[in-house]
Amino acid sequence: MTQNRRIVLAARPEGAVRPEHFRLETQPLPAVPDGHLLVRNRFLSLDPYMRGAMNDRKSYRKPQAIGETMVGGTVGEVVESRHPKFAVGDVVVGGFGWQLYGLSDGGGGLRKVDTSKVPMQAWLGPAGMPGVTAWVGLNRIIAPKAGETVVVSAASGAVGSVVGQLAKAQGCRVVGVAGGAAKCGLVVDAYGFDACVDYKAGRLEADLAAATPDGIDGYFENVGGAVLDAVLGRMNAFGRIAVCGLIAGYNDEPIPVQRFNSVLLNRLRIQGFIVSEVPDAWPPALAELAAKVADGSLKYRETIAHGLDAAPAAFIGLLRGENLGKQLVALD
Amino acid sequence: MTQNRRIVLAARPEGAVRPEHFRLETQPLPAVPDGHLLVRNRFLSLDPYMRGAMNDRKSYRKPQAIGETMVGGTVGEVVESRHPKFAVGDVVVGGFGWQLYGLSDGGGGLRKVDTSKVPMQAWLGPAGMPGVTAWVGLNRIIAPKAGETVVVSAASGAVGSVVGQLAKAQGCRVVGVAGGAAKCGLVVDAYGFDACVDYKAGRLEADLAAATPDGIDGYFENVGGAVLDAVLGRMNAFGRIAVCGLIAGYNDEPIPVQRFNSVLLNRLRIQGFIVSEVPDAWPPALAELAAKVADGSLKYRETIAHGLDAAPAAFIGLLRGENLGKQLVALD
Repeated sequence: MTQNRRIVLAARPEGAVRPEHFRLETQPLPAVPDGHLLVRNRFLSLDPYMRGAMNDRKSYRKPQAIGETMVGGTVGEVVESRHPKFAVGDVVVGGFGWQLYGLSDGGGGLRKVDTSKVPMQAWLGPAGMPGVTAWVGLNRIIAPKAGETVVVSAASGAVGSVVGQLAKAQGCRVVGVAGGAAKCGLVVDAYGFDACVDYKAGRLEADLAAATPDGIDGYFENVGGAVLDAVLGRMNAFGRIAVCGLIAGYNDEPIPVQRFNSVLLNRLRIQGFIVSEVPDAWPPALAELAAKVADGSLKYRETIAHGLDAAPAAFIGLLRGENLGKQLVALD
Repeated sequence: MTQNRRIVLAARPEGAVRPEHFRLETQPLPAVPDGHLLVRNRFLSLDPYMRGAMNDRKSYRKPQAIGETMVGGTVGEVVESRHPKFAVGDVVVGGFGWQLYGLSDGGGGLRKVDTSKVPMQAWLGPAGMPGVTAWVGLNRIIAPKAGETVVVSAASGAVGSVVGQLAKAQGCRVVGVAGGAAKCGLVVDAYGFDACVDYKAGRLEADLAAATPDGIDGYFENVGGAVLDAVLGRMNAFGRIAVCGLIAGYNDEPIPVQRFNSVLLNRLRIQGFIVSEVPDAWPPALAELAAKVADGSLKYRETIAHGLDAAPAAFIGLLRGENLGKQLVALD
């Protein structure tokens, strides 16, 4: 008999996440009540926000409960349906978490996607939550004008790579910040950024200054820490900073910001945001992003781990920056 | 023969401002060319921004040149006019700086004011630049709803006292932060704030928490440093912070911000601003503020030093927080 397999949060990490914070469990498949459907998940998305959810601190989302399935976005196929709007074989994006099967009443943001032109897993990446995150931060907060300089941290990642490509298409000078020569090469060669600063090369301030001769007008913040301070020191008057993540401080106490006075000196606007709280942006963003994935103008890379068992190690690697592009788990 | 007396910047301060950074000079009165007017200044406004202007660092305004008249807002009477729009006896607000007389071609923001209901020097305070600064930060950036909690630092000062009174009139819970029991008493008793936290009492975090049981929705920032961090720890989701000044770091290197992660956790919006860059706000703000000064509903206090020679010591006192309310110099 087919069984569901899932990964639950076994213990809350203090500092770095380790394999023992997760536990694999096997369960019977649930019965499908009237009005419900059962999905066999094919890909699981791994994202930095999950690290925050593992804490019991105040955050923008409820802490992940101990012993419950790890949260996460998924794409998969309907394998049984007693719901009028879904049929067996439909491909659906949902938030079923780290497990092979998911039961749904059709709510909770579950939506059918068209895989004829956009690959199934791209609905978790450039045409999914990370892409919409990029779209919202760039268009709703930074709102750059052609000719302005936009800097993106974690530039090789699922969000940052989309930010840069959208900004480049709007006529901006686009500069990425990423860790290591391989990522920086990808940022410039594959994603078409004008320049990329390798923050691991030990010359962050000088390299950022060289890459932004006209200063910085917009910054898409995924990282925090030294990169944020370096950027604050290069911001132009009336610059905008979209704060999407502060991954540098996720494991431990937040890193102090040294150059907050740039907010006053340069009359900056800084806005934190969570993409799920901007529902009106999703339809136009997804339409634009899916069209660009379909016609090949929006490039993306994936790092795919195979099998649910591989998810914890892949997630730990993501937090260390070991992945290249969107980190997925194929639920083979 | 009447002479002009002025105070110039003699040397740039490293750290604290001292009397030797200023120099008093005497000059012949300038001739008044056609199309110009001569003003005898009666009051000089002393404001924290002048400290920034004394540095040679990048800032939002050009550094004050060595050997030139210290910048500053003034109000006075036209004593000679060869300008069609100004007559002898008109009272005008201008930016003539630290001197007894000012020559103008009528530009540079010079404007006539009506002193029949609003005292001359109030056009430098609640009905002047500080009042408009309060109005802009509150109404254009914080934009509070009735019932929300608004916190104001430097609450007993020329800007902070107006912020709190305007917010209170909009139905907010208003909490000030000020240094010392005398200032806190003024904030609550004279300005009608709901509460005031004395940051010098050594219990900043606990006292702020007690004064803001429902958290903080809007913050008007004049100070920076420990107060900013305490506020960041109390902000509610979707809070707004208007950054008008960071006086805690004016003398030395800026003070690091420890809780920047609140921007993401609470999806904050932080906006730095300079009131001179929001020209469209001045007419509605001045109309509202002058009406409230005239009808007595907007309270204010002044600390007046007498004589131009007293200006340096008064300014040094302002930077130390020794004044109560708007710091003026009567140019007797």
